[in-house]
Amino acid sequence: MTTPKLASRMERIVPFYVMDLLARAKQLEAEGRSVIHMEVGEPDFITPEPVIEAGKNALYAGHTGYTAATGIPELRQAISDHYGRSFSIDVDPARIIVTPGASGALQLVMSVLIDPGQEVLMTDPGYPCNKNFVELVSGVPVGVPVNADSNYQLNSTHIGDNWSDKTRAVMVATPSNPTGTVVERDEMARIHKTVKERGGHLIVDEIYQGLVYGQDGYSSLELADDLFVINSFSKYFGMTGWRLGWVVAPHAFVESLDTLAQNLFLSCTSMSQYAALEAFSPRCLDVLEQRRDEFRKRRDFLLPALQDIGFRIPVPPQGAFYLYVDSSGLTDDSFSFAYELLEAQGVAITPGKDFGIHKPEQHIRFAYTNSIENMAEGVRRIRKFLAR
Amino acid sequence: MTTPKLASRMERIVPFYVMDLLARAKQLEAEGRSVIHMEVGEPDFITPEPVIEAGKNALYAGHTGYTAATGIPELRQAISDHYGRSFSIDVDPARIIVTPGASGALQLVMSVLIDPGQEVLMTDPGYPCNKNFVELVSGVPVGVPVNADSNYQLNSTHIGDNWSDKTRAVMVATPSNPTGTVVERDEMARIHKTVKERGGHLIVDEIYQGLVYGQDGYSSLELADDLFVINSFSKYFGMTGWRLGWVVAPHAFVESLDTLAQNLFLSCTSMSQYAALEAFSPRCLDVLEQRRDEFRKRRDFLLPALQDIGFRIPVPPQGAFYLYVDSSGLTDDSFSFAYELLEAQGVAITPGKDFGIHKPEQHIRFAYTNSIENMAEGVRRIRKFLAR
Repeated sequence: MTTPKLASRMERIVPFYVMDLLARAKQLEAEGRSVIHMEVGEPDFITPEPVIEAGKNALYAGHTGYTAATGIPELRQAISDHYGRSFSIDVDPARIIVTPGASGALQLVMSVLIDPGQEVLMTDPGYPCNKNFVELVSGVPVGVPVNADSNYQLNSTHIGDNWSDKTRAVMVATPSNPTGTVVERDEMARIHKTVKERGGHLIVDEIYQGLVYGQDGYSSLELADDLFVINSFSKYFGMTGWRLGWVVAPHAFVESLDTLAQNLFLSCTSMSQYAALEAFSPRCLDVLEQRRDEFRKRRDFLLPALQDIGFRIPVPPQGAFYLYVDSSGLTDDSFSFAYELLEAQGVAITPGKDFGIHKPEQHIRFAYTNSIENMAEGVRRIRKFLAR
Repeated sequence: MTTPKLASRMERIVPFYVMDLLARAKQLEAEGRSVIHMEVGEPDFITPEPVIEAGKNALYAGHTGYTAATGIPELRQAISDHYGRSFSIDVDPARIIVTPGASGALQLVMSVLIDPGQEVLMTDPGYPCNKNFVELVSGVPVGVPVNADSNYQLNSTHIGDNWSDKTRAVMVATPSNPTGTVVERDEMARIHKTVKERGGHLIVDEIYQGLVYGQDGYSSLELADDLFVINSFSKYFGMTGWRLGWVVAPHAFVESLDTLAQNLFLSCTSMSQYAALEAFSPRCLDVLEQRRDEFRKRRDFLLPALQDIGFRIPVPPQGAFYLYVDSSGLTDDSFSFAYELLEAQGVAITPGKDFGIHKPEQHIRFAYTNSIENMAEGVRRIRKFLAR
């Protein structure tokens, strides 16, 4: 088999390293070994029953055809109502475009904004796909190294310092994957101002909205109507496999996003959209709030437990379901550490390497998408591993 | 509202013109007017019952999470089995990547193959999204004008004549949207040979496979294992709203396509994949074959009926559910004709403009995705319109 000539972007779009680790974990499990999973970026709950019921009803009703490329009007309205109810923000449903997951939203926004050679600022560490959506359209993702001193987030100073005449947009995620940290409201306002002053565009990833603990969440949509906000039914709403997200765009971009959605996606999955209408029902929100509470308990268990065995967590994460820990007191190579831990003790974690090039060898992401009981066993096993 | 600065590709990615016509048709219907639809590229049947049942069962079973980016193994195997059963071709399931519709497949293939500035040859007229998937990655779609003398399809001569040192791939669709014509097996072999001799890649769109009338279908996969074949559950299988397709790729490209699928899509809709397993069941195939027979009857009704009122159809289309008719004997502006017909008589059709720049004003696409009874009424109305 000869190596084919690939488009040059494929040199820069790499697989998730954790996939290999996951494959090895599955192999071990197939051999009868027990593996504690703390690497998975997906809630361990199935979709709430009311949504599943609504999905079945959508099938009964024969909703099996294409929908409008921007989503069914009822769902765009329901999302608008959600912003009104949860954040007291008035969002015109015409600005809401339903997409195949937040992935679809990210792709639309990058494709509509970024010309070849233009730069997009984002955090390093950050969600690995973000940079690849920029690569796809021959743009240049610029990872800005962030540390505990800025909550592992961009701030307005970073943006000023890293702005070039090629910078077109800034992307911020709050709460963030992998760090679980949030951008405080005041800082987001400064970021927005800084980006606008330079004539760029702000893109805010809010896909972990709703999964914030011990503080009230907010939406950056309260700041202005000239920014792009990306969201998803996957995380808080527990609908990963339904592939449904959305973007709220400035009015002036809606038509182009619609055109692009027609061409790239035709439409989102029909029954997913009808099912998602039920995601905002009181019955479903009750379930989701119970789950949020469970995630908070898990964070409150795992954070001190990891500190106790020697991981440093300089900024307590306030959201998502991740702890991004500094492992440099225990290893100088988090990647090997992760593989050795898996082989020796059957614990799966995600080494920093998947999230960027800024000190990845000193960091590990733990996902608390597993029960406290299982995580306690995981921590016991890590303790044993460290005592080896 | 100021006009925003868009990425320059958006100058070349245009909305489907038929969307405006469709919006006007819906407006007329809301006002109480009757509209006969012959513009819609979607079967008028809902998804076969066995698939819907399987979808519900997938929800019961809790299949609501992410799957592997390349699709659930059972479905890749089922698609492989389908090639074995229907075309006696042995296709390694590892070469089959399940995608969010054929749209997702097209995007993966173009993204993996095409560098900025590289050219892809395709027919004009052709499916409008094809060129836009090339535009998205800053490639150059080259529309080759095709006429009745080549069945409105590319042949090896076209390819030789239009090849440049920037040509990277050739895309062929059989049966074709909008023309409904097929590329004969021998010609496809010559096309494949011509493309290979020049060191390019052949991409064959087979999304209307199964919807061929009065002749046996084939898959280009029988020619070689070095070409890309794109397919879909949308058309023959009647699953448009489930957003599911696939690509069969050369072995050497599978890893890159997987990486890209991880990054762009994460996974396809989970319940759609489990439901699609049932699409190949004898019970479902019975339904689909009845529907194919119905489409054949519709073609056999509509083709002479349109000829009878003055449209020319120099090549009888053998597949899909489209007639691409030469309207130059009745109008020199098919675009205005379509709008005037809609206003005057309530018949919706798709003018050639959506499919390219080669004589669009002389052509109209009729979709026979409507009952014979309704189409007969449509033809009566067009006759009245022509007698105005």
